[in-house]
Amino acid sequence: MYRVGVDLGGTNISVGVIDENLNIIGRGKLKTNLPRSFDEIFSDIVKAVHMAVEDAGISMNDVLSIGAGTPGAVDLESGVVEFSSNLNFYNAPFKSELEKAFGKPAFVTNDANCAALAEKMLGTGKGVKDFIAITLGTGIGGGIFINDKMLTGVNGAAGETGHMVIQTEGIKCGCGRKGCWEKYASATAIVQQTKDALLKDNYKKSYIWNLIDNDISKVNGRTAFDAMRNCDELGTRIVEKYIYYLACGITNLINVFQPQAFCIGGGMSNEGDALLLPVVEMVEKERYSIHSSKQTKICIAELKNDAGVIGAALLNEI
Amino acid sequence: MYRVGVDLGGTNISVGVIDENLNIIGRGKLKTNLPRSFDEIFSDIVKAVHMAVEDAGISMNDVLSIGAGTPGAVDLESGVVEFSSNLNFYNAPFKSELEKAFGKPAFVTNDANCAALAEKMLGTGKGVKDFIAITLGTGIGGGIFINDKMLTGVNGAAGETGHMVIQTEGIKCGCGRKGCWEKYASATAIVQQTKDALLKDNYKKSYIWNLIDNDISKVNGRTAFDAMRNCDELGTRIVEKYIYYLACGITNLINVFQPQAFCIGGGMSNEGDALLLPVVEMVEKERYSIHSSKQTKICIAELKNDAGVIGAALLNEI
Repeated sequence: MYRVGVDLGGTNISVGVIDENLNIIGRGKLKTNLPRSFDEIFSDIVKAVHMAVEDAGISMNDVLSIGAGTPGAVDLESGVVEFSSNLNFYNAPFKSELEKAFGKPAFVTNDANCAALAEKMLGTGKGVKDFIAITLGTGIGGGIFINDKMLTGVNGAAGETGHMVIQTEGIKCGCGRKGCWEKYASATAIVQQTKDALLKDNYKKSYIWNLIDNDISKVNGRTAFDAMRNCDELGTRIVEKYIYYLACGITNLINVFQPQAFCIGGGMSNEGDALLLPVVEMVEKERYSIHSSKQTKICIAELKNDAGVIGAALLNEI
Repeated sequence: MYRVGVDLGGTNISVGVIDENLNIIGRGKLKTNLPRSFDEIFSDIVKAVHMAVEDAGISMNDVLSIGAGTPGAVDLESGVVEFSSNLNFYNAPFKSELEKAFGKPAFVTNDANCAALAEKMLGTGKGVKDFIAITLGTGIGGGIFINDKMLTGVNGAAGETGHMVIQTEGIKCGCGRKGCWEKYASATAIVQQTKDALLKDNYKKSYIWNLIDNDISKVNGRTAFDAMRNCDELGTRIVEKYIYYLACGITNLINVFQPQAFCIGGGMSNEGDALLLPVVEMVEKERYSIHSSKQTKICIAELKNDAGVIGAALLNEI
């Protein structure tokens, strides 16, 4: 039997069919095309599922279940997306619509939880009972596992580590708070930090200008790291400050959870050791458990882009 | 059968014998008298246990188990206190020494976890699967329960919510970090905030000076609240800022955990609704799950001073 996973994002609807070995054997993809209503988006989700099933060369009869990850907070029992600020969903009956459309058991949860679930079952979290996985992307998402179970909280909205304030009265966040971690340590944050540094310091000589063809709109999450690798002083400074903020939030979470493993995923994790090693060094200096014989292992996610789809397909197991 | 609970603090060694109805039927108390070595303190713990057993009118043969709560991080399997900065313990073999001294099963964990366990089993956490209890005292301690189990982490040091940074580059904390929550929202913090405000603003007319007989060393955790209740402007301002910091950390934890209930204990919780209601109001405005149909219930701890002793006695149940 096969399972279908839907990864609904702000840009794409990505669908995968996975086999019993958890390999993706068929794919479907359509644009989310925001802003659209839930009904409009849902009809494209149905199309993308059929595309993936056809691509896999199977029929819907061979499909056991359908899981979906979506930005926002999902009531796990009802499968209703109670709200998603990114998609502008309020009380969208995602699970019941999936069950109606396909006549299969359906499961819906938060997208960051899906990616974390895949990492837990197939990546760095394999065999790790207490596990935290964060994704550094547009924001900071997170999935938390305690005793092998996903932490969902009373309302399915647990794991919003990105909305932990690390700077009271800091940068305003879309969630309404000020100083949320994701405003300092997401991929979006380092892009902004790079732009701010270039403009504020009016640092004409920085190698960053070469990297971006003197066009500040070309700054991305890699720019400062690339500049640092070219021994650029400004790039190094931006990266150091970014790492400081990243390590601050990770240390907060380790002081609270002391998990066996803490995994960093999402776009920024492609920096690998250039990101990981200085983060580990800072956390090791600061964590409360500095004298403990057992410590949290901090690592980079093994699963890359498919984590969301695979995790969604695995939702029937939790 | 009876159980013995030991609450080891920086000031007192408090021991209680509890019966099957979880009532304390005998007590023993000695001074901790810091600084002393673990061996010296331990011999007084043994004495205090015998005092409590005698006070209960039972014999050691009637005692099923002995549990102890201590500041610091405890390896739960070995029962070794790996470190306690307050008591200056390093690798103190607390559990094995208790077992040797009394020939009973012994259990050792962090003191804030003990208080939280008592609140979980007998107070506001009864029947609540996902539960967080914090204590606002010298620092901020915490105990976290997920699916009815205490979150201990890989090394027994989980739950250190007080050492979550809410202000990068903020006030220096004894743990080595800067800007820890407990530097802003513990009882110690509001004492400092009150003193700072009195000195900085040179606010000669504040009613606070009456409350403290013009002696700044008499400021305590209640002072600003008492002044506020007397419509004092400075007192009101201090309390509002304190509540802001307290709500900030609580919102952080709710955004990450979304527990069913969140309980505030420790000295500051004696302020009751004067503390609780404005905290709830701020958290309700800021939490990420603002549109969810189910929300964390925030409340004041029911158990007061005996929580540590009772929780320690209950450690054999977890």
